[in-house]
Amino acid sequence: MCITMSPIGVIRSPFKTKEETPIQGIFQPDAAGVVEVFPEFADGLRDIEGFSHIILLYHFHCAGPVELVRRTFLDDNEPHGVFASRHPCRPNGIGLSVVRLLGREGGFLRVGEIDVLDGTPLLDIKPYVRRFDCRPQAASGWLEGKEGREKPPGRE
Amino acid sequence: MCITMSPIGVIRSPFKTKEETPIQGIFQPDAAGVVEVFPEFADGLRDIEGFSHIILLYHFHCAGPVELVRRTFLDDNEPHGVFASRHPCRPNGIGLSVVRLLGREGGFLRVGEIDVLDGTPLLDIKPYVRRFDCRPQAASGWLEGKEGREKPPGRE
Repeated sequence: MCITMSPIGVIRSPFKTKEETPIQGIFQPDAAGVVEVFPEFADGLRDIEGFSHIILLYHFHCAGPVELVRRTFLDDNEPHGVFASRHPCRPNGIGLSVVRLLGREGGFLRVGEIDVLDGTPLLDIKPYVRRFDCRPQAASGWLEGKEGREKPPGRE
Repeated sequence: MCITMSPIGVIRSPFKTKEETPIQGIFQPDAAGVVEVFPEFADGLRDIEGFSHIILLYHFHCAGPVELVRRTFLDDNEPHGVFASRHPCRPNGIGLSVVRLLGREGGFLRVGEIDVLDGTPLLDIKPYVRRFDCRPQAASGWLEGKEGREKPPGRE
């Protein structure tokens, strides 16, 4: 069974290489970018301005081959399953980032806290809804205590 | 540009029709389901047990035609842009649900707070990480104050 998708836009960011792209945007609150929604989809943005945060789903178009168990950015010692990590080299290659919505001009959204490689194909935008998406008590497994670490230089 | 995806598993839930499927799983904390990851991908689940919540990405395989601006489940009065709503009829048809992880037996994950139609093709699983995904101060736009409403009967 094959599911075919087409980009609805493209993500512009200051990060021109994988190496300089942060692990998660919340580590780089000043990193601003632009989400460009193609004109034929721009009507779907109506009322998005009211949300302070949005969820971007995008295609990891530069990711390498899938490894189901692999070393990750945030743990030097143990490899982890790809579905227990946010690593880009994964089956179906869908990336997910929560970003801050700073403003909208037509089909262009200015966003903050971005962690996406420049030129990344955009698949979907969803509004971030506290009641649906926020779990302040969630336990973060092997990532607990490692969430704030910077990406080690050269680690992919 | 076309991106091709294949399911990595299937989601089993008590909801056999769209009409009985809740809007978001947090409204139905007792709704339990099983996420079946196909055997060839099950190694990728290593260490997922440590996370209390996971993010399911799946394909809205029964969704109707896309409408970029449409009436939604949670607002009787105003239509909203599809990217400012979580409605299933959207370009690329990717669904996103945060569910509670109750346990794992091999490639099978028992989950709670599920809001997904039985038989839905699974595209990806990501660990829910507080630091990456939790925004307790987020403003929920037109959904503010409507987040706790039940789905009106017969509304699609």
